[in-house]
Amino acid sequence: MSRPAPGLRSDYVAFYSLPTRWTDNDEYGHMNNGTYLSLFDTALSLWQIDQGIAIQGPDAARFLVVENGCRYHKEAGFPDLLHAGLRIGHLGRSSLRFDIGLFRNDEAEACTEGFFAQVLVDAHGQPSPIPDSMRRLYEKLM
Amino acid sequence: MSRPAPGLRSDYVAFYSLPTRWTDNDEYGHMNNGTYLSLFDTALSLWQIDQGIAIQGPDAARFLVVENGCRYHKEAGFPDLLHAGLRIGHLGRSSLRFDIGLFRNDEAEACTEGFFAQVLVDAHGQPSPIPDSMRRLYEKLM
Amino acid sequence: MSRPAPGLRSDYVAFYSLPTRWTDNDEYGHMNNGTYLSLFDTALSLWQIDQGIAIQGPDAARFLVVENGCRYHKEAGFPDLLHAGLRIGHLGRSSLRFDIGLFRNDEAEACTEGFFAQVLVDAHGQPSPIPDSMRRLYEKLM
Amino acid sequence: MSRPAPGLRSDYVAFYSLPTRWTDNDEYGHMNNGTYLSLFDTALSLWQIDQGIAIQGPDAARFLVVENGCRYHKEAGFPDLLHAGLRIGHLGRSSLRFDIGLFRNDEAEACTEGFFAQVLVDAHGQPSPIPDSMRRLYEKLM
Repeated sequence: MSRPAPGLRSDYVAFYSLPTRWTDNDEYGHMNNGTYLSLFDTALSLWQIDQGIAIQGPDAARFLVVENGCRYHKEAGFPDLLHAGLRIGHLGRSSLRFDIGLFRNDEAEACTEGFFAQVLVDAHGQPSPIPDSMRRLYEKLM
Repeated sequence: MSRPAPGLRSDYVAFYSLPTRWTDNDEYGHMNNGTYLSLFDTALSLWQIDQGIAIQGPDAARFLVVENGCRYHKEAGFPDLLHAGLRIGHLGRSSLRFDIGLFRNDEAEACTEGFFAQVLVDAHGQPSPIPDSMRRLYEKLM
Repeated sequence: MSRPAPGLRSDYVAFYSLPTRWTDNDEYGHMNNGTYLSLFDTALSLWQIDQGIAIQGPDAARFLVVENGCRYHKEAGFPDLLHAGLRIGHLGRSSLRFDIGLFRNDEAEACTEGFFAQVLVDAHGQPSPIPDSMRRLYEKLM
Repeated sequence: MSRPAPGLRSDYVAFYSLPTRWTDNDEYGHMNNGTYLSLFDTALSLWQIDQGIAIQGPDAARFLVVENGCRYHKEAGFPDLLHAGLRIGHLGRSSLRFDIGLFRNDEAEACTEGFFAQVLVDAHGQPSPIPDSMRRLYEKLM
């Protein structure tokens, strides 16, 4: 399988530092695949909170993940300090795609890259247009 | 985004029942995205153990995940009983792709479908041909 | 440190079977300590759901854990099938203590035993008397 | 149940900052009980690594947890930044007890306090005396 080259830090716009935990490593001594996704959604959540987008509580904007994926270039694991880079790869009417690159310690190339395709939904779970004020925030990540 | 229809149980070959846990649900009251992957790798691991493929200990066959992905058709969460269906979607020289469908309780359509692209590696982390005896086991899932 | 002998299945009243997952094992190849607690609260939650006690949604009875603890007699880990035995060790006005024994596969002695001391709280987080109808359910576990 | 007052930062010796993750919160919108333990063992592990005590790989010193426990004074959860304070509460021939206090953001009182009682074991899982050189490291935390 031919594979795209790992992304660089300059391919991403906003960064969050995410320390690993002892229990992130599985029996193979490296970070379990599911843990990568939980680092991704932590970085996304921190960025949204920093922008003033409410993601918790009864008035939260709720983005439903409809698809995600991950490519692994190199192994990571405890006690690595990981840095998650964020970028908006697609911004539609009610959907968007977050691209995330994970960088180990001070490395220049991403060890892992993934995406979350999300749809903003209303209280009935139906797609809802992204409000202009929110759209302008996401455009900063393009 | 136009999306493929959810798969059916008949699209998969071997099944494992995987109960959910209280902590699988996140603050939105449904299963966190990362948890789906940990159900997927549990189903894969159980199937390998059932086939006599050693995945633990010093003599374990080690398959490295190089890419994975997941499409979410419907939400799942505690206390759902989930059933993971397995299928081999690709079987190469040293690589293979597991396709997994997750079915909620007694539902006919998958709530979630994903894949794990894996490469068999040797002790030095280099791709290693899948032995014929092991290949015959994987062919049963095609 | 002198330690009490492991409990037996006859020391517990209600049982739930809880399969382990690949990612439950940490780098030492056995189940991570935190995972035991998440098995405990899954067993508690399943029992409450079986009794008709609402623990999810806006009308949920909310028991706050004020203390918990765990003694480890033997290691457990994937792919063990664990069986959680439940018992109420204390039933006060607004508080109770769940005792949990975890049994590996078909073993007679608990591999792990723990407790959750809980207080029923109202919408303001203040201790609230356990209603008689609910108390009768918990008495079945004594 | 009468309960001891929460500990202060001055009750602990070494500190590690541990950011929370989105998935740490369960359906009640606060950190799941099991997650506290995984923060505790991360702080312990980071301190051991800082002291040059090998805890990973074939030559790792292996401390088996025989008992742990946790008292919850206040809820914590994402996006809190938690600070884990460490102290050795007991140092025996082959056993020791780590006491851990978890402090929310810039709070002076611990939100949670717990302990891990551990026994150093040899390759056969038998208790093994803590070497003097290692003992001197642990004494720094008393």
